[in-house]
Amino acid sequence: MTKSTEIPYKIYLEESEMPKAWYNVRADMKKKPAPLVNPGTGKPMTAAELEAVFCADLVKQELDNDTRDFPIPDDIRNFYKMYRPSPLVRAYCLEEKLGTPAHIYYKFEGNNTSGSHKLNSAIAQAYYAKKQGLKGITTETGAGQWGTALSMASAYLDLDLIVYMVKVSYEQKPFRREVMRTYGSRVIASPSDTTNVGRKILEEFPGTGGSLGCAISEAVEYAVTHEGYRYVLGSVLNQVLLHQSVIGLETKAALDKYGVKADIIIGCAGGGSNLGGLISPFMGQKLRGEADYDIIAVEPASCPSFTRGVYAYDFCDTGKICPLAKMYTLGSSFMPSPIHAGGLRYHGMSPILSELYDQKLMRAVSVEQTEVFKAAQMFARIEGILPAPESSHAIKAAIDEALKCKETGEAKNIVFGLTGTGYFDMVAYGQFNDGKMTDFIPSDEDIAKSIALLPKV
Amino acid sequence: MTKSTEIPYKIYLEESEMPKAWYNVRADMKKKPAPLVNPGTGKPMTAAELEAVFCADLVKQELDNDTRDFPIPDDIRNFYKMYRPSPLVRAYCLEEKLGTPAHIYYKFEGNNTSGSHKLNSAIAQAYYAKKQGLKGITTETGAGQWGTALSMASAYLDLDLIVYMVKVSYEQKPFRREVMRTYGSRVIASPSDTTNVGRKILEEFPGTGGSLGCAISEAVEYAVTHEGYRYVLGSVLNQVLLHQSVIGLETKAALDKYGVKADIIIGCAGGGSNLGGLISPFMGQKLRGEADYDIIAVEPASCPSFTRGVYAYDFCDTGKICPLAKMYTLGSSFMPSPIHAGGLRYHGMSPILSELYDQKLMRAVSVEQTEVFKAAQMFARIEGILPAPESSHAIKAAIDEALKCKETGEAKNIVFGLTGTGYFDMVAYGQFNDGKMTDFIPSDEDIAKSIALLPKV
Repeated sequence: MTKSTEIPYKIYLEESEMPKAWYNVRADMKKKPAPLVNPGTGKPMTAAELEAVFCADLVKQELDNDTRDFPIPDDIRNFYKMYRPSPLVRAYCLEEKLGTPAHIYYKFEGNNTSGSHKLNSAIAQAYYAKKQGLKGITTETGAGQWGTALSMASAYLDLDLIVYMVKVSYEQKPFRREVMRTYGSRVIASPSDTTNVGRKILEEFPGTGGSLGCAISEAVEYAVTHEGYRYVLGSVLNQVLLHQSVIGLETKAALDKYGVKADIIIGCAGGGSNLGGLISPFMGQKLRGEADYDIIAVEPASCPSFTRGVYAYDFCDTGKICPLAKMYTLGSSFMPSPIHAGGLRYHGMSPILSELYDQKLMRAVSVEQTEVFKAAQMFARIEGILPAPESSHAIKAAIDEALKCKETGEAKNIVFGLTGTGYFDMVAYGQFNDGKMTDFIPSDEDIAKSIALLPKV
Repeated sequence: MTKSTEIPYKIYLEESEMPKAWYNVRADMKKKPAPLVNPGTGKPMTAAELEAVFCADLVKQELDNDTRDFPIPDDIRNFYKMYRPSPLVRAYCLEEKLGTPAHIYYKFEGNNTSGSHKLNSAIAQAYYAKKQGLKGITTETGAGQWGTALSMASAYLDLDLIVYMVKVSYEQKPFRREVMRTYGSRVIASPSDTTNVGRKILEEFPGTGGSLGCAISEAVEYAVTHEGYRYVLGSVLNQVLLHQSVIGLETKAALDKYGVKADIIIGCAGGGSNLGGLISPFMGQKLRGEADYDIIAVEPASCPSFTRGVYAYDFCDTGKICPLAKMYTLGSSFMPSPIHAGGLRYHGMSPILSELYDQKLMRAVSVEQTEVFKAAQMFARIEGILPAPESSHAIKAAIDEALKCKETGEAKNIVFGLTGTGYFDMVAYGQFNDGKMTDFIPSDEDIAKSIALLPKV
């Protein structure tokens, strides 16, 4: 408890040390990630096709596999300054509790009102929409982290935002909904009567609680049928990983400042936005042969796209209206069990990360829900931060690696991404506190069934 | 949005610049605050009497009007390092939106899991309980901020904690309850069958939702009837203001670092823990004649102890079991209207602040709930942080002062305390978003009635 060292508990960079450009890891990849494909034509999506749905500048970022650094516009940097640089924390207390010789660091992205790293891409996407002179943007949200982040960004830029929120979450998670409304967003329970696809589903299935696939379909329909609107997405896409590189760039700058070389880098992985951002500059060094790192993606055992999926073209959404992406996937018809880490319940994985994983430049592990909450509770009590269930997947893996170091006596530097806080996840914590949490692991048959339905490309 | 200046958006002190001692403003007061009085004997409470309920070291701090600096023990400083120094934020975006020549700064205490400044005193009180070799501590909580803070501190020190939570909050605010349980606290709905006073109330009023007064009575009874337990309190007391001086000391150090002299200092005031801590070093200068500041306490119009109360001896609790304190009070039988800033619904005010206010060393204003939420919403959209309703009282007053500067053209430096976040107050925000929020202002008759019942000392 009274350990003394030159490395502070929290390393805050100066504002002047914040990254001035996002880093595009694709520029350093010899084999590039596979392009998005138009399911109608079977050919790579063109910029023109994408611009019907997405903002023009974001389409450029999406398709650019070569430009290494994208300067961060001043307005975005100034917004970042309201909550960044985020601290890189040395987990002295956790190290002591575990009795490990390892040094554990975590990059904490939860100290902003959206409660997660999602804000890093939300402000960028909202900025380019505003720059294009759009009236507004649309999106979908499940648990509500992405919707909250985008609400904050849109309020700041005075941009209209319509969030289609899965009806069951809209009703059961009124707090997140009210945060978004406080920021001035229109939050619509999906399915709704505001779109054709919504009306059709309501007619067929009156009383349905909705799904993320349906909410995406509604958000896209609204955007393409209303003048001056575009659709934005919080994960999976290349542009999102580009914006999230700010996490990794700050992490690396903070470690460099104290002469610390990371050995292991760990992040939770759903669609890949956090992990992709955290590892990008380190992966860049690895791709250029300048340094080596053991990079670990942690996914829930209930939704194991890396560890039990296949690398193939698939729909990004369950509604099958978005382009096809080549990625590690369980099949877009795979229905993840109802685990509490909603942000990790995604059938696929970012095409960039999928390609890097396929090239064996990183590895993946899967962990079960109850073990994750045990780690989360321990972390909360020792380090003081109540972590989001998603982030707790990385905590669990980091603890496991630190305990391995205890066995071998190695003083490795372990760095993990703490993506957010769990204040809006107390129903799950309550279930855990009451000893009523269970694990869900899909059967081989379940996975085989949805993989058999993959589209032929 | 692109204002450039040498002062960063967020001023973070280095860990080495954190205060090494708490500052006791009483040492610089010529006329000291009045002592606590034993309602039975009518005489000042002795250390021995207080030690039956409170920890010994804390009693010393409570009674010491002369020692100027109390060194902060290393273990507490190390705990502080997990979430302090807290940032002093320059509100560039708010200034621009208001079009004011004033410079606005806020000390943000919400970036920890308890979501407020309460943690500063919670860890200190838990530490001295542990040092005394106690098994555990007891307390009460209403909305749950104090209970959460104390749960975090107790978990860290492996100390047993029993929280009596007002039953209606226990049932209606399950999220806060689960945070406390996640940290290992025993949370008991009050009134309960675990104490004589609880059983008696349950018998008389079966089905009652409980009250803070009743919860205090149960927590104190449990502490005094169980070997190795003491009772702790999160506001009002001198010791609490002492610990909270860390807020003001950091604020002053950060301003000094950039050569900024505050003109106006603003804090919300319920029991006075935040305001007292924020202003203490500045008030010290004022008391010593070294500098002058315009210091403003902001209270809710529904519970206006400074602006409409009297300065007299009164019970600290509605249950009338605690010692008498001389303070600005509306009478311990005053029932504050159900406003959403639960942390400000207190009939009295810290004896230290009461004495300073009586000496006209600070002033007070009261603000109405709907105006407070308008300011809160504006602040959230512009500065990105979703503030607690309590903190938003200070925001409202700061905006008012900044707008006065706009009229006069004065570039004053306005500093206010942003005590915490509003993530667990979304029911109130929802009411505001729906346009259903109303104001509550007590009548002169209501206040006169409860003041008439003040004890004779």
